[in-house]
Amino acid sequence: MAKTVPVVEDILSTNQKIAFKNRSQFDEGGVFAINLMASPGAGKTSLITETIKGMSGEYRIAYIDGDIATSIDADKVAKLKVPAVQINTGGQCHLDAMMIQKALPQLELGETDLLIVENVGNLVCPTSFHLGIHRNVLIASIPEGDDKPYKYPGMYQGVDVIVLNKMDVLDSFDFRMDYFRQGVEILNPGLSFFPLSCKTGEGVREWNDWLRTEILKYQKDGGEGYELR
Amino acid sequence: MAKTVPVVEDILSTNQKIAFKNRSQFDEGGVFAINLMASPGAGKTSLITETIKGMSGEYRIAYIDGDIATSIDADKVAKLKVPAVQINTGGQCHLDAMMIQKALPQLELGETDLLIVENVGNLVCPTSFHLGIHRNVLIASIPEGDDKPYKYPGMYQGVDVIVLNKMDVLDSFDFRMDYFRQGVEILNPGLSFFPLSCKTGEGVREWNDWLRTEILKYQKDGGEGYELR
Repeated sequence: MAKTVPVVEDILSTNQKIAFKNRSQFDEGGVFAINLMASPGAGKTSLITETIKGMSGEYRIAYIDGDIATSIDADKVAKLKVPAVQINTGGQCHLDAMMIQKALPQLELGETDLLIVENVGNLVCPTSFHLGIHRNVLIASIPEGDDKPYKYPGMYQGVDVIVLNKMDVLDSFDFRMDYFRQGVEILNPGLSFFPLSCKTGEGVREWNDWLRTEILKYQKDGGEGYELR
Repeated sequence: MAKTVPVVEDILSTNQKIAFKNRSQFDEGGVFAINLMASPGAGKTSLITETIKGMSGEYRIAYIDGDIATSIDADKVAKLKVPAVQINTGGQCHLDAMMIQKALPQLELGETDLLIVENVGNLVCPTSFHLGIHRNVLIASIPEGDDKPYKYPGMYQGVDVIVLNKMDVLDSFDFRMDYFRQGVEILNPGLSFFPLSCKTGEGVREWNDWLRTEILKYQKDGGEGYELR
């Protein structure tokens, strides 16, 4: 199967070029863009909903939802009256830069401060494909278990911040916080970390505050110095 | 990116050939083989542990574990004194037939009744790659949410049985059982379904009984009439 390698490289380098193009469009419009990744059911859409509720008074937020099928998530978010674009990947296990590029004409980038991209529920493939966004966010959750950093190191290394959701059910699961944190620290030292519950709202404010600080930083330095994500 | 398609087809057809080879080896040895798929943290390893505890007195069980990194799961299962082989996929998001083929010489197929393969935690990619096994098992779990059949239809269509784990925390989550079952029924009518809790043991016996019946059926008709999985 060695002959597949150049093609894979081609795809990734093509993806990279389009990711740069997306990034330019974000920066021209002054749009701070984040990409949310997680296992299926960790709470991506819930966190996005809570974020929009907490911050849409201050910032103009837009949303792109990547799913294999259905528009269940996009419909939920559209109810909150933010511009929402649905991408159905047609079975593909991750978003790529071209899917984002095709979605952008449906948004008013010049009238957007924060773009939230929700990736396909998958702890493996999404990190391999840059989208052109500024920050990668991983949502872990208590029921998934404390060994996930060790078992999915690529994902834990590839993100800029971790949200640990479903803290309200911590007592119902054998989740060793120290063991989890230790795994994260080995892979991605000093990473920002927000334990919270989208159900009770506990900890959501700290996450929103982090996002506010990041947006401020971005607006101050006009998109300079961000690694391609 | 149209030029990638023939290569993908090549890979899948090569995979198919090797899957057939695996199947022949299973059937020569009289080994009933199952493939367990799930989201990260749904409880694949816990279900395997419970299955081995409940059935290793009756059947000779062997185990192949697919993980991106670490041997955490294989080590857990090896403690139960069944032959266990670890496959590290090196970042790849699914097992393929060749990985299984390479693992088989490490097992005594002539002295195995049941082979349990644990796939990489992923609700998307694993269904596209036949391994040569006889039955595909999906482990869903309550905390993941009731909308997963609708959002990951490929996975729910590609399996022969569904285990719904973590029933002990049903009351802590907004999980509409009817909605979940309805999604499953649309995609895969009449599918066997086992709600259970690996933590409390509730419902595990019914799952083990299903497996016993399947092994008996397999041993009776010597591997005839099984679709490639």
